[in-house]
Amino acid sequence: MASTESGLIKISILYPYAEGKTFNMEYYETKHMPMVAKYLGSNLVKYTIEKGLASGMPNQPLPYMAVGAFYVKSLEEYQAAIAPNRDAIRADFANYTNVVPVILVSKVVK
Amino acid sequence: MASTESGLIKISILYPYAEGKTFNMEYYETKHMPMVAKYLGSNLVKYTIEKGLASGMPNQPLPYMAVGAFYVKSLEEYQAAIAPNRDAIRADFANYTNVVPVILVSKVVK
Repeated sequence: MASTESGLIKISILYPYAEGKTFNMEYYETKHMPMVAKYLGSNLVKYTIEKGLASGMPNQPLPYMAVGAFYVKSLEEYQAAIAPNRDAIRADFANYTNVVPVILVSKVVK
Repeated sequence: MASTESGLIKISILYPYAEGKTFNMEYYETKHMPMVAKYLGSNLVKYTIEKGLASGMPNQPLPYMAVGAFYVKSLEEYQAAIAPNRDAIRADFANYTNVVPVILVSKVVK
């Protein structure tokens, strides 16, 4: 069960669930994620999208409605590619959600 | 950029970061995750481990120290496999962390 992603940097964007919060998965999948992916160029190895279904803890609310993730070779290149496009990316948030995401930068161990 | 994981169920276990909280990645990688993976049998397609590095938001604390995830074909089979082993899994938590994880069940869209 070796992973081809080992050693890559992963940027996960997690959209918290709460009463009254919305998320348009179709827009996210067809417009937002491809837009950001284009900014990342050849530094991007792959990106993934998940739809939140439930908490894995009994009687707990759904923690996240959706999660997007970018797997990149270089964090520095990612940051350099995002910085000049940050305003455009943030402005697009309103087209698919009304929640502020949690963003995690991690290293793929396995 | 098609994903071979599309349509799978993903169970993500996210370990929040906070002052005084600890996480032993070596134990997690070599003991805990392989133990749980064994319970899941052929329903498990793959599992992944990430080490949290930073928040992707400027001036925000690290949201999660580590994230583990199981990609399975069937949520029902996952639940049936975990239920009789839940006590053993939870008892093992103390061997590598002192934080209660957030658990997200999601569907891989892409």
